[in-house]
Amino acid sequence: MEMLYEGKAKKIFKTDNNGEYLVYYKDDATAFNGVKKDEINEKGIINNKISSYVFELLESNDIKTHYVKRISDREMIVKSVEIVPLEVIVRNVSAGSMCKRFGVDEGLEFKSPVFEFSYKNDDLGDPLINDYHAIALKLATKEELDYIREQAFKINELLKTFFKKLDLKLIDFKLEFGKTQDNEIILADEVSPDTCRLWDVNTNQKMDKDRFRRDLGNVIDAYKEVLSRIEL
Amino acid sequence: MEMLYEGKAKKIFKTDNNGEYLVYYKDDATAFNGVKKDEINEKGIINNKISSYVFELLESNDIKTHYVKRISDREMIVKSVEIVPLEVIVRNVSAGSMCKRFGVDEGLEFKSPVFEFSYKNDDLGDPLINDYHAIALKLATKEELDYIREQAFKINELLKTFFKKLDLKLIDFKLEFGKTQDNEIILADEVSPDTCRLWDVNTNQKMDKDRFRRDLGNVIDAYKEVLSRIEL
Ligand SMILES: Nc1ncnc2c1ncn2[C@@H]1O[C@H](COP(=O)(O)OP(=O)(O)OP(=O)(O)O)[C@@H](O)[C@H]1O
Ligand SMILES: Nc1ncnc2c1ncn2[C@@H]1O[C@H](COP(=O)(O)OP(=O)(O)OP(=O)(O)O)[C@@H](O)[C@H]1O
Ligand SMILES: [Mg+2]
Ligand SMILES: [Mg+2]
Repeated sequence: MEMLYEGKAKKIFKTDNNGEYLVYYKDDATAFNGVKKDEINEKGIINNKISSYVFELLESNDIKTHYVKRISDREMIVKSVEIVPLEVIVRNVSAGSMCKRFGVDEGLEFKSPVFEFSYKNDDLGDPLINDYHAIALKLATKEELDYIREQAFKINELLKTFFKKLDLKLIDFKLEFGKTQDNEIILADEVSPDTCRLWDVNTNQKMDKDRFRRDLGNVIDAYKEVLSRIEL
Repeated sequence: MEMLYEGKAKKIFKTDNNGEYLVYYKDDATAFNGVKKDEINEKGIINNKISSYVFELLESNDIKTHYVKRISDREMIVKSVEIVPLEVIVRNVSAGSMCKRFGVDEGLEFKSPVFEFSYKNDDLGDPLINDYHAIALKLATKEELDYIREQAFKINELLKTFFKKLDLKLIDFKLEFGKTQDNEIILADEVSPDTCRLWDVNTNQKMDKDRFRRDLGNVIDAYKEVLSRIEL
């Protein structure tokens, strides 16, 4: 199979089906725009499974996603899209870059979700961007931005409820959307502890990539615990 | 008179009138968040005059401003306000931080004006901020943000027309708004070549603080040329 793209966490391959790609989940972990790197044994397997469950949940709640099916431990078939070059971030509780940028403490609960776009551009360090900038740079139209935002808020409500039942608090997450050959915008990429912050409701323990970013240890155990709560 | 605040470009004094301050325009110039510093002889005089003309123009076009009157070369009486801690930026042509942030060339004309807020906080480097952040950090309400944005777009149209008649192209500018004792939001601070980018329509020469930022020379001559075109 022809590999189209090797990213930091996944490889994307062509398939015989026009309009479908194969995603292969790797064990590589990176943080701080690739400066910190490591391999986390079995992370790819866990993330492929968690992502599959999440996409299935979203699909069953009328969210259009790129997910077609999981075909092996590390592989998923998805609809091929042209990725909109925006990281779509929803925050329920302050954490990460937002704390640093605005000098606020971690753990502040927002009255209503905080939304942001950043420009998906590694060379520029994925800078925060607003609607006016994104339109001026022709990254998306106003209608596309509004649609993506609306979908992201819906996904936030669905995921908050989903994780709450598993005693996990959804702090924030990053999504990517893409455009299909029929010009439809759908959710793409992955939804996993690499892309969501999840805290145990009772202990406030971090169950996500922050364990890797901050050298908190037991990274894979936390990811496995998330998966096992989903599969229970 | 009691000095309330000494900023990088102006001093603010109490007056005998409750609800009014005196603004004194200094010759100090700073750039890059205070890292680059110099004195530009007579800049305070020129900026006080230009600001006064601009506030008068805006007032006569139904924009509420803090301007009361100019009382001397360097002094202006204004309504005292509580400054909304946001820098309000409107861009017609790409320049400055937007070029750096998004890797775009200077001089790109936008189809419609680009708007942005940044969080007025020197320690944090005045970071770009969006509506959701500003509301979550309680810097302003949604209604206030919408009102400020609407006013800023109106001001942009008025200033574009005003400067065009003087053969100056309004590239971008920074505004500050404040809340009066009656909870009204009005335009405050200054509008001058320190806070606007202005290019000569025919030569594209920079007639603003970028001459200082980039060591282009003839800073005060450019400021004086702007004033003389206004006074013609
Ligand atoms: N359905 C899809 N069709 C096309 N590309 C996709 C699809 N889903 C995800 N992608 C893209 O495939 C790549 C996934 O790889 P990975 O997550 O490892 O990338 P990355 O290292 O995070 O790099 P990037 O900065 O490009 O996201 C990403 O560029 C992602 O945008
Ligand atoms: N009408 C007003 N009432 C109260 N404060 C005002 C008014 N107009 C302007 N200001 C504030 O007065 C100060 C003006 O000083 P100056 O422009 O020198 O400040 P600065 O060095 O740019 O610092 P800052 O980062 O606070 O803007 C600014 O803080 C500005 O927000
Ligand atoms: Mg990725
Ligand atoms: Mg100032």
